[in-house]
This record gives sequence, structure tokens and C-alpha cells, in this order.
Amino acid sequence: MAKFAIMGHGTLGSGLAEVARVNKDEIAARLGEAVEVKYILDIRDFPDSPDADKFIKDFAIIENDPEVEVVVECIGGTKVAQEFTRRALQAGKHVVTANKELVATFGKDLLAIAAEKNVNYLFEASVGGAIPLLRPLFQCMAGNQIEEIAGILNGTTNYILTRMVQDGASFADALKEAQAKGYAEADPTADVEGIDAGRKICILANLAWGKEVAPSKVSMTGISAIDLKDVDIAASAGYKVKLLGHALRLDGGKVAAYVAPHLVSEKMLLASVDDVFNACMIRGNAADEVMFYGRGAGKPTASALMGDVIDAIQHREKRRELGWSESADLADSALLPMKWYLRGDFTAADAKAVCGEVEEIAPNAVITAAMSEIDAKAVAEKLSAAAMLRVL
Amino acid sequence: MAKFAIMGHGTLGSGLAEVARVNKDEIAARLGEAVEVKYILDIRDFPDSPDADKFIKDFAIIENDPEVEVVVECIGGTKVAQEFTRRALQAGKHVVTANKELVATFGKDLLAIAAEKNVNYLFEASVGGAIPLLRPLFQCMAGNQIEEIAGILNGTTNYILTRMVQDGASFADALKEAQAKGYAEADPTADVEGIDAGRKICILANLAWGKEVAPSKVSMTGISAIDLKDVDIAASAGYKVKLLGHALRLDGGKVAAYVAPHLVSEKMLLASVDDVFNACMIRGNAADEVMFYGRGAGKPTASALMGDVIDAIQHREKRRELGWSESADLADSALLPMKWYLRGDFTAADAKAVCGEVEEIAPNAVITAAMSEIDAKAVAEKLSAAAMLRVL
Repeated sequence: MAKFAIMGHGTLGSGLAEVARVNKDEIAARLGEAVEVKYILDIRDFPDSPDADKFIKDFAIIENDPEVEVVVECIGGTKVAQEFTRRALQAGKHVVTANKELVATFGKDLLAIAAEKNVNYLFEASVGGAIPLLRPLFQCMAGNQIEEIAGILNGTTNYILTRMVQDGASFADALKEAQAKGYAEADPTADVEGIDAGRKICILANLAWGKEVAPSKVSMTGISAIDLKDVDIAASAGYKVKLLGHALRLDGGKVAAYVAPHLVSEKMLLASVDDVFNACMIRGNAADEVMFYGRGAGKPTASALMGDVIDAIQHREKRRELGWSESADLADSALLPMKWYLRGDFTAADAKAVCGEVEEIAPNAVITAAMSEIDAKAVAEKLSAAAMLRVL
Repeated sequence: MAKFAIMGHGTLGSGLAEVARVNKDEIAARLGEAVEVKYILDIRDFPDSPDADKFIKDFAIIENDPEVEVVVECIGGTKVAQEFTRRALQAGKHVVTANKELVATFGKDLLAIAAEKNVNYLFEASVGGAIPLLRPLFQCMAGNQIEEIAGILNGTTNYILTRMVQDGASFADALKEAQAKGYAEADPTADVEGIDAGRKICILANLAWGKEVAPSKVSMTGISAIDLKDVDIAASAGYKVKLLGHALRLDGGKVAAYVAPHLVSEKMLLASVDDVFNACMIRGNAADEVMFYGRGAGKPTASALMGDVIDAIQHREKRRELGWSESADLADSALLPMKWYLRGDFTAADAKAVCGEVEEIAPNAVITAAMSEIDAKAVAEKLSAAAMLRVL
């Protein structure tokens, strides 16, 4: 019998308690051992919960109970969550989390504590929600040199972009709809400005290349400035506008990572990923491209948390050697060559005169040859372009 | 330093040797230990191989060398491959394979030997080629009750169907093209008749529910009887014809598994999986639907083999508890309720008179309400239908 504690009883914490209860027979059969929630830590009361007898308000009870092997942090943020995570690891307990902000910002230190204490710190749920993504990357693809990662890593923005494409809604209206449906928070900044996706691409890059890519060093552009005009022009030319987290390994070992909206050709599977769904493409030099798809947020994320709890128990004797070390050698993402979409009061001939061959995709919009963001901005300025977007 | 042996130097075996050579620094960094090919077993000579000094012709050298920790079986078939696998496991070596025929047919016994000898028998490469699929299923989704698996599990048939849809090629012409491109074998029976996909859906079902689903008990229908007419009608109505391996857990715990061509709505991501690519949808009661996509055959499969070699080494002390026991309680797939596509010299009104509400998708084709195959066959007979196909 293995016992674990859940900290926080919001969507994720309560979802996990439910999964542990409903699937306990399957889990025991797979693991060869029963798994049980012993405590649920929350400052609120839940007298009607089927787990009502498990609620506590004092973290020290978890910290000091040797029966608790695994602690699942569903608190969020980086203050209390970080303190309790540190203390749980120091107390020799495995910790599982969905907290991308904490993992992206303080993961290196927390993993070092986990290594020192010989316990697991696992965070499959922090990227892609319910989608198996981190373990396939660091385990199944461990024989690859990872070359590129490109993902729709934020469900809120993908929902908003889908409404813009399918219903012709403006960004502002689509955001309101997302808020009404509970897909976007009252303060949607972290989602719509690409910060959430940025944390996730950092975690993926950390695992792919073993060196820290700090969110503070990653360029993040969201979708709040996306004009419906460009979504429509892109659609008419066979592209969908998607917010992508993108990370690349360059020749010489440098790594580049950024978040920005891209035109994605409808020929690519990624373009067909709509609504709140997430998907991530990983390209390795042995596997070539693989893609993972599913629900990137909300209650289904409990699947990933439960998987990590089981994995921590399976690796209680010999821990998962997981982590990243010193800072990655980062390339400036503004120097990466890529194609650009430009729109404005200019003709394809005007654009050609400024930057060479272009593809005209509408009377007032072109796609350029590959060039850096710096060069593309210079071109856009010369043409007085009203909009510029990356093309994947 | 961990050493392993490769048996067979065809596409997979030589691909694996190359991955081990090219990515040896990355692999050593991730594993914290160098990994090296010590022997390559093949009856042929490869004097120009960069691994020329590693070739041997006598399996006993591998069997008796205590330095060889892992043996990768890339021989294929169930005769020599089975004998060498048994002997390697008996000799206390971990075994890794891509051999779906061997795993589907004799996996239960081989896994029992592995358990007895306290070694790993791993086969991520046997289903979905390079796609991380089995480990996400049995590990990342271990907290789920698995409810359904539906996959495009054979690249040859998906290539043929894609040519039929996109270029209007007949089955016979598309098969010839696939053979010319090396995607189909001279004797294409195992691929086009659904036998290969059938072995793969059995392996997935075994891992999902922990009980053996024997290929001999699974209904397998291939694509050789698919008429271009039906592919065209389906396309005009927003469906693609795809060969799916399909497994379901029914109420009461019975399991159903079969292989057959299906109409798949273009609204489903699975319908966008074309050419030689594979993809598999797995639905769990916690995660909901997730999908995995990538290259299901050929050289990229070496990625999965290398991942398993690394995993075997990481779990050399505490083995992966993997396996399935007695036979699953199988439901007759002919009794599963599903919608059917019927085509023939009848009107929608004729069809409605025989089986109730139908959806008319072309002047001579309908989609029925959900009913069993047995009932659908009776309806088809009454209508003298020229074609009937499942609808996912």
C-alpha cells in the first residue's frame, strides 16, 4: 500500500482525488500495489467530498508523516507551492506537479534537491496537460538528438484563434467567449501574451537538451495583436494562424526558443488542431517527426498527475535521473531564418523589389523567402507593412 | 559502459547500429553511461560497414558473453527470432524487439520467462514504429481505465488508401506503386489483408487490459476489396476510408478487438493522417482522447529500439513489470453496435424502409444508425447492397 497527499483541491487536485478513487482497482492491478490518498491539503472546507475525512490545513502533517511517500502539488504559483515543494523533497518525499511556472523558473534547483535526497520530482502534467509528452521525449526518444520542437501549448489561445478562423470573431469577442466558457481567466495575460506557452517550451527545451532555458531569456509574443484580416487572408491561402512554442537546436549546439503566432500550412497536421486542444511536434534525428495530441488543460490533466504518482512509486528505489544543468547557450531567436507573412498597401512587385522573390497569397499580402526577424522588420518598414507574422 | 548486441542487419538492425554510433554522445549524457554495440549477428557479410569488426555468425557468442547486457532482435518471423529470444532471456539478458508477430503470438510466454529471469523484454518498436505509443499507454496513462483504442497501424495500407483518395488510383494500381517505392513487399498479404495491423491492435489491447488477446481470435479485414467508387463517395461526403485497428472495453469488462476499413469523418484528426504515417488514438476515462502520430515503419523505428535499449539499462536492477496474463474475455466484434455505410441500387427511402433512419450521403449511398455487423449484413442483403463499410 502506497500513500500520497494532494496539496490543493481545485480542478486538478479534486480531479486527481477522483481518478485515484474511481480507478483504484486498475491502478493496483498495474502497479501490483494499492495506492491511496491519505491527506488533502486545502485552506477551504469540503464537507460534501467523498474524501471529506482526508482534508487537513497544516502542511506539517504531510511533511512529518513517514507514511506519505508522494506529495502532489496542485497549489499553483511559485510562493507557497515552492516552499512546500522544497520542504516535501527535503523530507524525502517524491513530488509530482502540474505547475509549469514553478518548474520552468525554479526546476533546476528543485531537481537538484530531489537528486540530493534521492527522490523523484516529476512534472509530466506541466506541459500538454493530459498528453503524454515529457516522458516520450526524455525516455522513448532518448536515443535521438532532438532537433526541433513546435507545439500548440496553450488551449486558451488556440480556442480564441479557432473562433476567429471558424466564426470570424474578433480577438476581443473570442476572448470574452473563452472567459464565459471558463477557458480563459479573468486576467488572461499569461495565456494571451504567450507567457504560459513560453514556460512550457522552456521545460521541453530543458529536457530535450539538458541545459536550462530560462523563461526570462525567451522572447514571447502572444495573440492580442492578431488582426482578423490576417487570419482571413491566411485561411484563404491554406494557412491557419496558430500560437506556437518553438525550440530548435542549431548547428554548433546553440539552442533557440521563442513563442509567437505563426501561419501553419493546412498540409501540416498541427494546423488541424483546434479549440482547446494542444499538440506538440518533436523532431529527432532518428525518429523524424512525431506528434502528440490531446487535452492540454483542466480535469484530464489528472491523468498525467496520476501517471507520475505511479511512476514515482515504481521508481522509489532507483529514482528517475531527470534534470538540467547550467544555462543553455542561447541563440537570439530574432536571427533565426524563417519565412514571413507581410500585409499592407503594397503589391507583390513592390515587395519583390525590396526583398527578392515572394509568394503573393492575396492582392495585399505576400510570403517572403527565409530571413531573420531583424531583416524582416527592415523589409516591413520599407513597405510600411501593416502586419507581419512568422510562417512555420 | 553498457554493451549490447544486434541480431539482424536489415533496415532496422543497420538503422539501430547507425543511431548508436551517431548519437553516442547524447545517449551517454542522458544515461550517465556510454552504450556500445558489441556484436552484430548476421549470416551475411558487411565488409564496408563502419561496424565491420563487430559482425559474427554464431549466436552462442552473444549468449555466452557476460558483457552483453541487452540483445536487440531484428530478425523477424517467429522461428529463429523466437529461439534466440528465449535463449537470450534464459541467459539473463534483456531483449528488445520490433517483431510484432512474435510479441503478439508468443509475448505472454516470453514475458513470463523475462519475469522469471528478472530481465526486461521490451517492444515499443513493435507498434507504431518510431512513435512513442506503448510506454505512454502502459506508463503515462497507467492511472486510466482504457476505454478505446483506434489506430492507423499499417503504413503500407495507409499509403495505398491515400493514393486512392488523392489520385483516384485503383487498389491494384496503388499497390503496384507502393511496391515500386518499397513501401509494400512482393507478397503484400500480411499488410493488405489487415494481419499486420491485427497483430498490433492485439499488443495494444494486451497492454491496455493486461490480458491476452490472441491474433487468431481477432477478426481481420483488409483493404483489397475496397472499391474506388466507395472511396470517392466517402470523400465527397467528408469522410476518408482508413484501415483501423480498433479495440474497446465493454461494460462488464469484456474486450473487443478487430481490424477493418472504416469511414472516418474529416472532422477527426485521424482522417488527416496520410501516406505511410501511422497514428493511434487512445481514450482513457481520465485523459479523454489522446493521439500519437509519426513514422510507423522503416529506419525511424530504430529510435524506438534505441529508446528501449536505454530503458532496459536504466531498469537493469529493477525490471519493468510488464506483461499480460490469461486470455481476455473477448466479445464478438460482429455484435458491436456501429454505423454502416451501404451503397447499391437503392434509394434512401428503400434503406429507411428496411432499417429505419439513415443519412443519405450520395444518391446511391447511405449511412445507417448504429447496429451490429450481423444486423447490417441482413440489411445489406435485403437491399442487395454492393458495398458495406464501418463508420468510426
